[in-house]
Amino acid sequence: MSGAPWYFDCDTGIDDALTLGLLVAEGADVKGIGSVSGNLAAAGGARNTLDLLAVMGRTDVPVAVGAHDPIDGVFGGGAAFVHGENGIGGVELPRVGEPVAESAAEMLVRLAHEHEGALRVLAVGPLTNLALALELEPRLPSLVADVVIMGGAAAVPGNVTAVAEANIINDPIAAQAVFAAEWPVTMVGLDVTMEARFEEAHRQRLEAGGESAKALAAMLGVYFDFYTAILGRPSCALHDPLAAAIALGTLEPTLAPLVPIEVDTTDGPGRGQTIVDRRDRYIGYPARPGLRHRAVLEIPEGFGDALLASLLRLP
Amino acid sequence: MSGAPWYFDCDTGIDDALTLGLLVAEGADVKGIGSVSGNLAAAGGARNTLDLLAVMGRTDVPVAVGAHDPIDGVFGGGAAFVHGENGIGGVELPRVGEPVAESAAEMLVRLAHEHEGALRVLAVGPLTNLALALELEPRLPSLVADVVIMGGAAAVPGNVTAVAEANIINDPIAAQAVFAAEWPVTMVGLDVTMEARFEEAHRQRLEAGGESAKALAAMLGVYFDFYTAILGRPSCALHDPLAAAIALGTLEPTLAPLVPIEVDTTDGPGRGQTIVDRRDRYIGYPARPGLRHRAVLEIPEGFGDALLASLLRLP
Repeated sequence: MSGAPWYFDCDTGIDDALTLGLLVAEGADVKGIGSVSGNLAAAGGARNTLDLLAVMGRTDVPVAVGAHDPIDGVFGGGAAFVHGENGIGGVELPRVGEPVAESAAEMLVRLAHEHEGALRVLAVGPLTNLALALELEPRLPSLVADVVIMGGAAAVPGNVTAVAEANIINDPIAAQAVFAAEWPVTMVGLDVTMEARFEEAHRQRLEAGGESAKALAAMLGVYFDFYTAILGRPSCALHDPLAAAIALGTLEPTLAPLVPIEVDTTDGPGRGQTIVDRRDRYIGYPARPGLRHRAVLEIPEGFGDALLASLLRLP
Repeated sequence: MSGAPWYFDCDTGIDDALTLGLLVAEGADVKGIGSVSGNLAAAGGARNTLDLLAVMGRTDVPVAVGAHDPIDGVFGGGAAFVHGENGIGGVELPRVGEPVAESAAEMLVRLAHEHEGALRVLAVGPLTNLALALELEPRLPSLVADVVIMGGAAAVPGNVTAVAEANIINDPIAAQAVFAAEWPVTMVGLDVTMEARFEEAHRQRLEAGGESAKALAAMLGVYFDFYTAILGRPSCALHDPLAAAIALGTLEPTLAPLVPIEVDTTDGPGRGQTIVDRRDRYIGYPARPGLRHRAVLEIPEGFGDALLASLLRLP
């Protein structure tokens, strides 16, 4: 577990909700949360985040609404077919609290100054807010300790196109800005998040937990429905929670080499792909100077069990 | 072994030379061979092909010089750092015979008409000649039985850029034309060709073979030198011979699903990538109507031994 101060950027979303649960359960020192359009519009994501924090007893964490549109386009409307119309599988939570006045990008810049050199960034939605923060404060990379993202795919197919993962293709320009900035970036992509799963047994055990766990279990019905067609059995991928666990250090990857990463921002068939240079794979990725991108390529088994255990500790 | 008539398109090249050896050793009914610029200029590739055929006792096979330049550009000069200045590791062979007057594309079109519905195409260089033949004869896809190519990469990195393999990036426009044409295409890419290898012991056994085998073994020194840095030991990848073995049916892939494939022809960082849609991987690639591209993704072990045994039968 990391004692560092965190800025968490999300598009809450069912697996974002699980991630909030993990962060709270693990006692992560989350100084602020920004929302971004992705699974649903940024305003709706902030609403879900606030309401989930209230269920989890953490109304003290400030939530900022972030970018509605990607850097060079218009928000596409989200993924109701994955996360339900309200983003959390149709689950209705008591409406508690309001977002702060600053934008998510402003919050990130403020926190980076307040916790200079210490702030860690975990971003599990499109990277628009991070790119906007880089524009607001060009010194941001030197103020922030590191960035961990859920997004992209190296050796496995995308989930929106054959090569593009949703968070990246929702704002490729922003993603490229984040990879190009002079800070350490850890990419937790589909290579590993598709291997991190909740099975039906996990969902049932969650259902028998506390109020927070029950709410999360209720959301998973919709999410399981979507993933059953992709995975061939009632289950789901644990995209965002896995990124959080790797960020917090509660899960140690078994293969996570430093490799060059860039994003395809063309309008061709590769748009939104994370181009991860794995040409050293045949010799075990020897250390090379100057690399600051880490791609998580393999994880140990058992993350579903570990996540469940954490979530069952929630109020 | 296939009794079909074959057109073989190549850029000879050390692994092309091994492939010629395999085709001759297996008694493939090769009706004609076209050269294309790739490992070296098309004229030099034709020269090497003629001289190798003579060593192997097959001066009866006609060889046509193919395209010097890719469809939309200028030949980049080849890969002397991989294959040596003359393309065959500096080995000097007796100069025997001359290319035919027709171009490689004209030869392919003629053979397709002469062996309508039966001609099979094996292409192990850039796909320029095939694209030119498609322009010359738009009915070509209905005249040809199928096309097997060495090229591209699906789940593994490229060998020229992080995502692009040499044959494809040397002429992405041509490659896309070949994948877009209405014929069955089998892609034998780096996913499997990097796993098919000659070790030092293979090279030594080849050295003790007949005249052809000795000549091939002599070429492998240069090729091993290049691959030792990539593979971490004295050895080499057997790109083109593997494609030939799969085409002839002497090696049966263990995973080769029908999947959509297209080529990135943009000028972005993905240029020359074969975009292989593997999104069905989590459910074992169920059959889907309308697909005509097969991507070879896994092969059994032992191809190096099998290739060696074939080559040791050469005169």
